[in-house]
Amino acid sequence: MSSISTKPVSGMRDHLPEAAGVRRAAVRRIESSFAVHGFQPLETPAMERLSTLLGKYGEEGDRLIYRVLHRGKRLERALAGEAVAPSDLAEFGLRYDLTVPLARVAAEYRGALPPVFRRYQIQPVWRADRAQRGRFREFTQCDADIVGSGSILADAETLVVLHHTLSALGFRDFTVLLNHREILRGLIEAAGIAGADESATLVTLDKLDKIGRGRVEDELARAPGVGPDRARRLLELVPDDDGKVAPGDLLAGVSAELPAGPARDAADQIATLLDALDDALDGALGGDAAAVRFAPSLARGLSYYTGPIFEVVAAGGAGSLAGGGRYDGLIGMFGKRPVPAVGFSLGMERILMLLAERGGFGGATAPRAVLCPLSGVAPGQTLAVAGALRARGVRLEVQVDRLRLGKQLARAAGSGARFAVILGPDEAAEGRCAVRDLGTREQQTVPLAEAADRLLAPE
Amino acid sequence: MSSISTKPVSGMRDHLPEAAGVRRAAVRRIESSFAVHGFQPLETPAMERLSTLLGKYGEEGDRLIYRVLHRGKRLERALAGEAVAPSDLAEFGLRYDLTVPLARVAAEYRGALPPVFRRYQIQPVWRADRAQRGRFREFTQCDADIVGSGSILADAETLVVLHHTLSALGFRDFTVLLNHREILRGLIEAAGIAGADESATLVTLDKLDKIGRGRVEDELARAPGVGPDRARRLLELVPDDDGKVAPGDLLAGVSAELPAGPARDAADQIATLLDALDDALDGALGGDAAAVRFAPSLARGLSYYTGPIFEVVAAGGAGSLAGGGRYDGLIGMFGKRPVPAVGFSLGMERILMLLAERGGFGGATAPRAVLCPLSGVAPGQTLAVAGALRARGVRLEVQVDRLRLGKQLARAAGSGARFAVILGPDEAAEGRCAVRDLGTREQQTVPLAEAADRLLAPE
Repeated sequence: MSSISTKPVSGMRDHLPEAAGVRRAAVRRIESSFAVHGFQPLETPAMERLSTLLGKYGEEGDRLIYRVLHRGKRLERALAGEAVAPSDLAEFGLRYDLTVPLARVAAEYRGALPPVFRRYQIQPVWRADRAQRGRFREFTQCDADIVGSGSILADAETLVVLHHTLSALGFRDFTVLLNHREILRGLIEAAGIAGADESATLVTLDKLDKIGRGRVEDELARAPGVGPDRARRLLELVPDDDGKVAPGDLLAGVSAELPAGPARDAADQIATLLDALDDALDGALGGDAAAVRFAPSLARGLSYYTGPIFEVVAAGGAGSLAGGGRYDGLIGMFGKRPVPAVGFSLGMERILMLLAERGGFGGATAPRAVLCPLSGVAPGQTLAVAGALRARGVRLEVQVDRLRLGKQLARAAGSGARFAVILGPDEAAEGRCAVRDLGTREQQTVPLAEAADRLLAPE
Repeated sequence: MSSISTKPVSGMRDHLPEAAGVRRAAVRRIESSFAVHGFQPLETPAMERLSTLLGKYGEEGDRLIYRVLHRGKRLERALAGEAVAPSDLAEFGLRYDLTVPLARVAAEYRGALPPVFRRYQIQPVWRADRAQRGRFREFTQCDADIVGSGSILADAETLVVLHHTLSALGFRDFTVLLNHREILRGLIEAAGIAGADESATLVTLDKLDKIGRGRVEDELARAPGVGPDRARRLLELVPDDDGKVAPGDLLAGVSAELPAGPARDAADQIATLLDALDDALDGALGGDAAAVRFAPSLARGLSYYTGPIFEVVAAGGAGSLAGGGRYDGLIGMFGKRPVPAVGFSLGMERILMLLAERGGFGGATAPRAVLCPLSGVAPGQTLAVAGALRARGVRLEVQVDRLRLGKQLARAAGSGARFAVILGPDEAAEGRCAVRDLGTREQQTVPLAEAADRLLAPE
């Protein structure tokens, strides 16, 4: 049997206690923040019908969906056919994201859900992507959305909970970049680029942060439907944000160039949003390190956005922490009418990586103390002492093997515990125990009632 | 598109907020209890290699494993062959339980894990079982195990954390039934039944609770290797426990009938365990409703147990809440040496069902209050008030749609919130708001600073 590989499946990970502890601590903070903002949990099955999944993520997405093989008679029948096609072999696939399940839930339980449904969902998704550093085939997504309202206040609330959640995780100096799909559309129109070339232009424009203005202009200039003049004009319309101009002023400048109609309305919406967030986030727009910035070149890849779009970038080039926006055309896909929606996805795996690097979230899973019973102490005595300490809230492991004290203390130190509690037969009889600091090696024998105080004392 | 079914896949469930809230609350209580007993979290991928999974759960188990279809070129090659066999089509399957992944982890990370590893794991598993009431194809398992120690103190610690966890979930009057594989073996030997007939005999004996002594004796009497005399003798050796006899006395009686050797040693172990638990669980063996009972007929289905076995049954015939025991032969299956282990599995889905029926765990996901802004209040004012209340810990939803007050209050009541906070333009300017109890309809206008106190006041 030992020839079987015991590594996890390629692209997937085992989370040993320290990592699993960070993940749990992060999820708890996130869930507390979501709850205080009125968001409620949803869980859906790992498997969905392929008819639900396919065609929602583009051709590339469809290729990356894991399919679940038919079983029993059904598989036999499929394999008995002349030419077996892949579509004969599977009816179900693994969840690829959390948005399609939300759309399915919104349609299935429309009567049971509130008219404006604030839901969050934190579950793994699976994508048969090329496994590479930092990209996994099983990873956790964390989405929060307000479904059923087209109000700009819903967009604002989404940004409020996002900002609060990242702060609760200990992130500082991150920036919320804010734009609107119709502003982008208006700018492209104002530059004289035809609607047919809009998508390709957006893809190039979205690279501004990565490759810089010069190379974006070059790329646009070479694009058949754009050319050098319109490329230059478009980049003039998208000012370089050095962070010194107040977001409202930047927006006013861009707005003046926009054609009247949806694009100008969109600019007004963003102005409202910026104002509201400035009040809500306690001066979010003030100073050099403004928490919220208008970012007229922000495009975000997904074509399903219909209104405000946003992305949160960490300070110091640590990349994107979250992204989202309004997508009024998607949640209604399984129902009879459109359902407006706005929300975001936290970049959980990146966030968890940053938290793990930063430290401070881990360690909480290690026991605080290890109880080391000496020879002659009855199991019942050991467990009674353990029970008394645990009842006081001490995270306590009982050292179960009969070992000499030195070995027990070494194991206790190896467990990551701060203290050992040593229980000999005399102490047990007298209701006392020795508390040993495994760092300083200081040790003191105290009555049991005092032991918990010592173990729980803040550093 | 609307012709696509939006129901979850058969045998799997969507957990809407109320149900998801109960699940989360239960998992948090369980995790707190595990942590205080020094157990640490482990997470493993949903997918495992079929070589890891197959052959571990018997023929029936192998049939129930969901397999993940090959993709791309690999699938093309498989389908291009002459006769396509199911084994050509899949390399990976979905996790069937949490024990095999633990065995894999124990082998893979042997050097990194502590010599005695207390781990818990709470994750879904998938079984392509016949879907029926109360049985699901995706369900959560919750396992806690101590891996790496053969000490009876490990068995005792396992029972301590199990008892504490069920108590933390609010269960009362449950009973821990305790037996030992070697005692069963010894009783069967003492009844004159040959070793070859042991397994079949155990299966029948395990039905005592369900079908009663008469029918068990009939069934054994008809079994080829047993017959009426040995059947009667075996049932004499397994006394009927009416709960009136102290577990230690019951054990002493049975022990006297056991052959010397492993069976008698096992009885001594159970005696030690009963004593230790009586001390640890504060008189667990006392009185009519003893928390821990010796149950000489308890067999538990799984043949992999090697030592003490136990099952927790809820009061009032609500069935089994948890089961477990020592299984020293399993965790080492992927490594070079045997690894002793003891642990249990909580019956999560039954427990969650009982908690949901009992109530008291739900509701915590609903917002405490809904903020209803009236016409003329700016979004920023609304969000600033919301932020102040949330900062005090009020679970608050902002009503985002522009609606007249009556409609807003109806929605607030529908959300399950206890209070509405009504914010008009005058109040907003004066730093006041109206707090309305949605149950009693009492309403009072108070300074904002007082509002949080009212909203958070205990009932």
